[in-house]
Amino acid sequence: MIIFYSRTVLADQATLEGDEMTHCTRVLRKQTGDLILITDGHGKLYEATIGMITKNALHCHIKKTVRETLHPCSYAICTTPTKNPARLEWFVEKATEIGIREIVLFFAARSEKKNVNEQRLHNILISAMKQSGNLILPKLVICKNTADALEYCKTYKHRFMAYCGEEAPCLSDLTKVGEDTIVLIGPEGDFTSEEVETARKHAFQVVSLGDARLRTETAGIVALMMMHLAR
Amino acid sequence: MIIFYSRTVLADQATLEGDEMTHCTRVLRKQTGDLILITDGHGKLYEATIGMITKNALHCHIKKTVRETLHPCSYAICTTPTKNPARLEWFVEKATEIGIREIVLFFAARSEKKNVNEQRLHNILISAMKQSGNLILPKLVICKNTADALEYCKTYKHRFMAYCGEEAPCLSDLTKVGEDTIVLIGPEGDFTSEEVETARKHAFQVVSLGDARLRTETAGIVALMMMHLAR
Repeated sequence: MIIFYSRTVLADQATLEGDEMTHCTRVLRKQTGDLILITDGHGKLYEATIGMITKNALHCHIKKTVRETLHPCSYAICTTPTKNPARLEWFVEKATEIGIREIVLFFAARSEKKNVNEQRLHNILISAMKQSGNLILPKLVICKNTADALEYCKTYKHRFMAYCGEEAPCLSDLTKVGEDTIVLIGPEGDFTSEEVETARKHAFQVVSLGDARLRTETAGIVALMMMHLAR
Repeated sequence: MIIFYSRTVLADQATLEGDEMTHCTRVLRKQTGDLILITDGHGKLYEATIGMITKNALHCHIKKTVRETLHPCSYAICTTPTKNPARLEWFVEKATEIGIREIVLFFAARSEKKNVNEQRLHNILISAMKQSGNLILPKLVICKNTADALEYCKTYKHRFMAYCGEEAPCLSDLTKVGEDTIVLIGPEGDFTSEEVETARKHAFQVVSLGDARLRTETAGIVALMMMHLAR
C-alpha cells in the first residue's frame, strides 16, 4: 500500500510535487484517472484520483477519507547532531517509524558537528512516515545552541534530561502516559555541568535510560520507546 | 573508560589479539606495565597489567575483577538479513548496546538477501559491547533456512512471532520478565503462510508490535525494547 504525501490539501483538492510527483508518475507510471492514497502529514489518509498532470504538479481529486489518526504522539526528543551524520539519519528514520511528535536538534557545547543537512533529514521524515503508515509528519526544529533549545522546549509540560553524570530515576517510571513530554539527549561528549544547571533552571529533571552506555542516537530511540511503553 | 575484549582468559592470564591488540598498542600506545580494563565477554570486567608483547599477542596479568554482570539478558531476536546490509548492521549494533542474549539470523522464503558477512557482524558485536560497557558478547547464530531457525529456537521457553497478517496481542503484554524469550521477525516481504503455520507447530505465538508498519530492523529493536521494559 503506497502512500503519497501532499503538502497542499485544500478541501477536496490535493497536489503532489517534486519527489512525490516523480515517484507517482515516473516510477509507478500512474496516469490521469488512477486511484492513489494521499496523506496530508497531519493524520489523514485520503483516497484520491489523479486529475490534471502539469510539468511541476500532479493535481488530485479527493474521493474520501480512508483513515484518520485521532491520537497523535505526545512525545518528543531534543538531541544533538552526531559526528557521523548517518547516525542522526538513522535516529530520524527510526523515531518517525516508531512515532514521534517532534525532533528538536541543537548544537551543544561539546557537539563536534556544527551543521545538519535539513533538507535531507526532511526527506527521511517523509519517506519514513509513508513507509510506516504513520499519517503524521514529525516536526523538525533546529536550534543554534543549548539555550535556544531549552527555551523552545518550554511548551512541553514534562521535560526530562538523560544525563549520565549522576544517579537518577528511570524515564519509564516518570512518564505520564499521553501527556506532552520531551527528553533532552546530550552529545557524544555529554552535557557540560553548566548545561545541566541551565536545563534544571528550565525545569528539566535528570532521568536514567538504564545501565548501558548508549550512543546518542540509541539513547534517543530508547527514550522514545520508554515513553511509548510507559504504563 | 576503554574496555578491551579477550577471547582467552585463563586463571589470571588474558591475551589480546588482532584488532584488540592493535587498538591497545598502536592506537593507544600502551606498553608493558600499563594498566588496562579487559572483559571476557561473559560478564566479567578485569583490571590487568600488560606483560609480554609478542608479534601476534599481548599477554596480560589480571589483578582483580572490577565488575561482574550477574543477570545476563534473557531475550533474543531471530530475524532475517535485510536487503541493505547496513540495516542489519544497525540492528546488531543497537541490539548489543541495549542488551541482547542472542541474535539468530536465517534466510526466509521471501528473503532477498542470501548471505551475510559474519566476520563483519562479529566485529560490530565486539565494538558495541565494549562501547556500551555491557560485559556480555551476544551470541550470533546463522541458520540456512526457516525450518533450521525454528528448530534452533526450541531451547527458548517463550517463543513469539511478529506477524502483520492477523490481529494479535501485543508482545509487551505477553513477556514474562526475565524468562528466556525469543521473538521471530520476518523479512521485508513478511513470512509466507506456510512459514507462519510451521512456526505455530513449533509453539510460536503470533504477537503484535503496535500499529505502525515497521522495517525489519526497526521491528527487531522495538521487540527487544518491549521485552526489556515489560513489567
